[in-house]
Amino acid sequence: MTDLLTSALNPRSVAIIGASDNIHKIGGRPIYYMQQHGFQGKVYPINPTRTEIQGHRAYGTLGDLPEVPDLALIVVGGDKTVSAVEECAARGVKSAVIIASGFGETGPEGKELEQHMLDKARATGMRLYGPNTQGLANFGTGAIAGFSTMFIEVPPMDGPIGIVSQSGGMSAMTYGLLRGRGLGVRHVHATGNEADVSVGEMALAVAHDPDVKLLLLYLETITKPDVLAQAAAIARERDLPIVAVKAGRTAGGQRAASSHTGSLANEDRTVNAFFEHHGIWRVRDPHEQARAAQAYLKGWRPQGKRLVVISNSGASCVMGADAADDEQLPLAELSPATQTAVAEKLPGFATTQNPIDITAALLSNSGLFGEVLPAVAKDPAADLFFIHIPVAGAGYDVERFARDAAAFEAATGKPVAVAAWQDSVAQAFRAHGIATFPNEGDAIAVLAQLANHTALLRKQAGHPKPVPPLALPTSSPLSARSGGFLNEAQSLQLLGEHGVPVVPMALCQSADEARAAFERISADGSRVVVKACSSDIPHKSEHGLVALNVASARQAGELFEQFWQKMADMQAAREGVIVAAMCKGRQEFMVGARVDPVFGPVVVVGDGGKYTEALNDCVVLLPPFSAQDVQTALQRLHMAPLLAGLRGEPPLDVAALAQLTVAVSEFVMRARGQVASLDLNPVLVGSAGEGAMVVDALIEVAAAR
Amino acid sequence: MTDLLTSALNPRSVAIIGASDNIHKIGGRPIYYMQQHGFQGKVYPINPTRTEIQGHRAYGTLGDLPEVPDLALIVVGGDKTVSAVEECAARGVKSAVIIASGFGETGPEGKELEQHMLDKARATGMRLYGPNTQGLANFGTGAIAGFSTMFIEVPPMDGPIGIVSQSGGMSAMTYGLLRGRGLGVRHVHATGNEADVSVGEMALAVAHDPDVKLLLLYLETITKPDVLAQAAAIARERDLPIVAVKAGRTAGGQRAASSHTGSLANEDRTVNAFFEHHGIWRVRDPHEQARAAQAYLKGWRPQGKRLVVISNSGASCVMGADAADDEQLPLAELSPATQTAVAEKLPGFATTQNPIDITAALLSNSGLFGEVLPAVAKDPAADLFFIHIPVAGAGYDVERFARDAAAFEAATGKPVAVAAWQDSVAQAFRAHGIATFPNEGDAIAVLAQLANHTALLRKQAGHPKPVPPLALPTSSPLSARSGGFLNEAQSLQLLGEHGVPVVPMALCQSADEARAAFERISADGSRVVVKACSSDIPHKSEHGLVALNVASARQAGELFEQFWQKMADMQAAREGVIVAAMCKGRQEFMVGARVDPVFGPVVVVGDGGKYTEALNDCVVLLPPFSAQDVQTALQRLHMAPLLAGLRGEPPLDVAALAQLTVAVSEFVMRARGQVASLDLNPVLVGSAGEGAMVVDALIEVAAAR
Repeated sequence: MTDLLTSALNPRSVAIIGASDNIHKIGGRPIYYMQQHGFQGKVYPINPTRTEIQGHRAYGTLGDLPEVPDLALIVVGGDKTVSAVEECAARGVKSAVIIASGFGETGPEGKELEQHMLDKARATGMRLYGPNTQGLANFGTGAIAGFSTMFIEVPPMDGPIGIVSQSGGMSAMTYGLLRGRGLGVRHVHATGNEADVSVGEMALAVAHDPDVKLLLLYLETITKPDVLAQAAAIARERDLPIVAVKAGRTAGGQRAASSHTGSLANEDRTVNAFFEHHGIWRVRDPHEQARAAQAYLKGWRPQGKRLVVISNSGASCVMGADAADDEQLPLAELSPATQTAVAEKLPGFATTQNPIDITAALLSNSGLFGEVLPAVAKDPAADLFFIHIPVAGAGYDVERFARDAAAFEAATGKPVAVAAWQDSVAQAFRAHGIATFPNEGDAIAVLAQLANHTALLRKQAGHPKPVPPLALPTSSPLSARSGGFLNEAQSLQLLGEHGVPVVPMALCQSADEARAAFERISADGSRVVVKACSSDIPHKSEHGLVALNVASARQAGELFEQFWQKMADMQAAREGVIVAAMCKGRQEFMVGARVDPVFGPVVVVGDGGKYTEALNDCVVLLPPFSAQDVQTALQRLHMAPLLAGLRGEPPLDVAALAQLTVAVSEFVMRARGQVASLDLNPVLVGSAGEGAMVVDALIEVAAAR
Repeated sequence: MTDLLTSALNPRSVAIIGASDNIHKIGGRPIYYMQQHGFQGKVYPINPTRTEIQGHRAYGTLGDLPEVPDLALIVVGGDKTVSAVEECAARGVKSAVIIASGFGETGPEGKELEQHMLDKARATGMRLYGPNTQGLANFGTGAIAGFSTMFIEVPPMDGPIGIVSQSGGMSAMTYGLLRGRGLGVRHVHATGNEADVSVGEMALAVAHDPDVKLLLLYLETITKPDVLAQAAAIARERDLPIVAVKAGRTAGGQRAASSHTGSLANEDRTVNAFFEHHGIWRVRDPHEQARAAQAYLKGWRPQGKRLVVISNSGASCVMGADAADDEQLPLAELSPATQTAVAEKLPGFATTQNPIDITAALLSNSGLFGEVLPAVAKDPAADLFFIHIPVAGAGYDVERFARDAAAFEAATGKPVAVAAWQDSVAQAFRAHGIATFPNEGDAIAVLAQLANHTALLRKQAGHPKPVPPLALPTSSPLSARSGGFLNEAQSLQLLGEHGVPVVPMALCQSADEARAAFERISADGSRVVVKACSSDIPHKSEHGLVALNVASARQAGELFEQFWQKMADMQAAREGVIVAAMCKGRQEFMVGARVDPVFGPVVVVGDGGKYTEALNDCVVLLPPFSAQDVQTALQRLHMAPLLAGLRGEPPLDVAALAQLTVAVSEFVMRARGQVASLDLNPVLVGSAGEGAMVVDALIEVAAAR
């Protein structure tokens, strides 16, 4: 699928169509940048009014060039853009970057023009970048097919970070924030409207660069999840973390995204499930991306989440403990040996528990810091360290603190984050290469992110294999129709055939059948449920068409007659009357699935019953997933405390619910293209060992393609 | 209760016990600071080994001074601290600041010493500050009875902000953060262990300073809520916003607070309810306090929460819309006139909706900004404005943008916040006095805080008057005992007598009484509930001691006999058998109340039923409150979507539930000192108009004092 986009990311020759001698114009900047950053390939300015541009020979047209360039950067606007693309394609250019805006983001007409350019490019195998992009920049090779002002504002330095962004503004901002922290950046690529190449495909290419150790993405829409998933897989193999901003999280944001890059809206909780599934860490904005970069580049992969807080301010210890709790990082319980060692160093009134309060005694003894830290460094109970210096200055040997902290970091080999709001203090720590933040919230959030992202990547390795699609027999009710819904009996039966535990039931067409079904289902003397089955009546109970606790065959037969008549009275399709076992589950859940137009099968599981939709207490999972994945996800529900059993009750059979959910996911993966959605509610779950069972189900058939 | 602490905040004379000539020692700093900041009163260094200190005549003892000083700053440590306090008290000093630590925060022995000093002070009317404090500083008068290094690091400037903090470190940090933003600070006071004067009392004093326009508090415990409430009331009258950090929000934080300043833990959701009740805005840390300071000082009091987002980056428009949603700020719908005016200025492909994307066209026309803003300034649909400049630099006339933004702010008279991460850009805006933030999250959070805090203060004005306590008659079951629980029948009856709607019921002592009760309660032919009543059996239904749907007097009599026997078998106190009406409420709620040792009566209302405690879906309110307050608070419940009625159901009778909750709050206020807690669960709520009713109740009697 991908050619690693070499002709764009590492071209041997670049033509600039609309080149300018003015380095502050869009057509002048790239030439200037390539010169500045040592691009070794050929640069071909194209401008019919000039013979030389910035020291390069200029050409009148693409056809005048001595060779067909790998990459063409199209800077001309309006109608000229389209004809330039046509000419590039015709001449066999491999990649074209289209800077101009005014295409897909403006509406249907612009979309059509975009499609036209894409068709032309596809016809000759040319790849398109943009339109509506700020372009591409590779500081490893100096191939800069972009014009960002930011490369003047903050001088580039090649380094281990790759940025791929739909938005040019955000690629520049993220670049600037990273460079402001002294970090080097190799790739700064913007994909704009993504007529052809998407962030995912670009990320896949960048993930193959062995020098890249951190990959940052900005997306407003995910159109090709498969290629992004492939990028994530490559990254995981290489131990390359991906941290993504997906803007347009909310309805308001999605509206704005649509007029920015013509983006289609993704359902946000599905986006979360997608990122989680593929081990991509999602953050809110470029600030959060830049904030964690240095810590990622340290290569820390924490084993756990237990935090030690150290400060020279008691209040900071208090707030550090609060912040740890906010991030769900438990405070490490220091070993007695560590506590004794710490106690020997600190004044009598200080605490030796975690948080460790070095107290204001640091003012009179600047060595305290270096005396306490080695005692803590090797404690096996600690996974993460946070040091807060909220007060320092005259009288404090800050340089010594920084040196001691650096020695501590080296000794422990585990993540250490420092917070210091005073610039002078922070600078001292930064000079020693320590990850230093202006406040504790940022520092502890980054430690938590590292620990959680590492755990996510470990978990991701445990995903089961996807289940291949399977054409259902033409006799299947799914094959028999296009769109619309199966009735309850068909839905239950189909699920049952695919390994999903469903309530034992029979669809009856006569009172005799109903009586016989009763005898069969109630063989053990248990009671049954009788309910009408008609696609026309979704809410049966509201029409008195459900009878619980039916205790005799005679009664089942009578109810058949009664419901049969009532369906006729309601002029509803009479598809039968269901006689089903009465389930004894303790708690109602719901399991749903739908085939998302972008992401494919998506499974939802959560609190069931009448108010499922309004209360929205559910989790979203992308198949394939394991029963363990379901169990972990269920712990995020508001209702999660019920799972373990309360007030002397036994726990619920969460394992059975998880297994049922996996079976549902395998069914939707197998029936891909044939099922549009399914809604199982309630799924009754009993106490541990009693199992889980689908009691009502509704399957929506996919429309024929 | 308060004398506005004049002798400490504005003393005519200050003695420093343990004075030093070295300005870097704790005993030297205050003298140096008072000289530097123009203190006009007398400074008396006390040090038996010197005759002169920093140009002042030094004295051997307190008794050698020519007068009794208003304020004594005790810098000596250990045992000398205690004797210094004793001497100050004996000589009639009005206020003493105790710097030394090693008292209440270290355990019972230290607490005892603290109490001893307090007793000595109380005996002669002297007020104590500390121990374990960094001291007091008033830059309005130059009275600096503190030693913070921060006053050297960041030079003081008198201004409209007051800081009162339990922690010296946090008072210094908040001071430094504010000064770093160029804001002037008048008061920087730390209260330490608060043996006597608390943050609340100090806040009350500072709130009386007419020059203070913003009051920032840091607390680790609230010990005297009444005086803090009084400070909040004075502040509200003066339109002086209070923004507080209350650390020790979590169990880990509270443990750390206990070893920092010997603080007692407050239940955190009660702290939230307290702050909300008194119009105090709570933030997480000093960074959040400093972040919003400039915006508060602008005096903005927004009328609503509708936000306009403006940027030169489409991606920032998307993320701005997302961030607005995060903070629950709706995007303002611009009027057609505004949209037309904006459209005339922007290029064709730009959107004129809110968010307003000025696009990269700003690079070629620096005037665009100033052309678009006036069109937006007067739109009546907007309450708040956010401008984001994520990309600028060479080619952008940033100075002009800042000028245009300042003119816009002046024209609209409404809050305007700017985000710009590039220092050069931010500096340009700040130079024009514009509230400028490094990122959009901060900017939008501050706008939301202003809007929400203003709304809270308006709401606070509507609190009803508190209900006075009322001694219950000695015949009341509350008066008859100390501690322990009333049984269900007693609890229901007592609530009913105080205007709380409870289920009609009778406590029966014989089968005859049960039959008679049935006839009375079931006069309309409805069914009844029969349940055992014994303080020894809290969970009746788990023992089969509750019978629903009882349809005849005969059955009621039989159940009496059966339950009576069973209670005997269980060796439980046989307090009777309750015959009660069967209520038809649709939804189970719980209403609870307890008398907090610090905050007094606290009321809880939320989702009821068996799992109330585990699901913890409830809101906390501090009485007195109105029914409207309850209704507003209920909207924060997870179950809130059910209140309005779902799937064709009528809405629940939320008004009745709110009224019931108010009645409960009035009961606990009246019964103060007699009731320890009450737990009403379930409270059945019907459809609108059907009312709400307590079906089961348990009242815990306060222990005799």
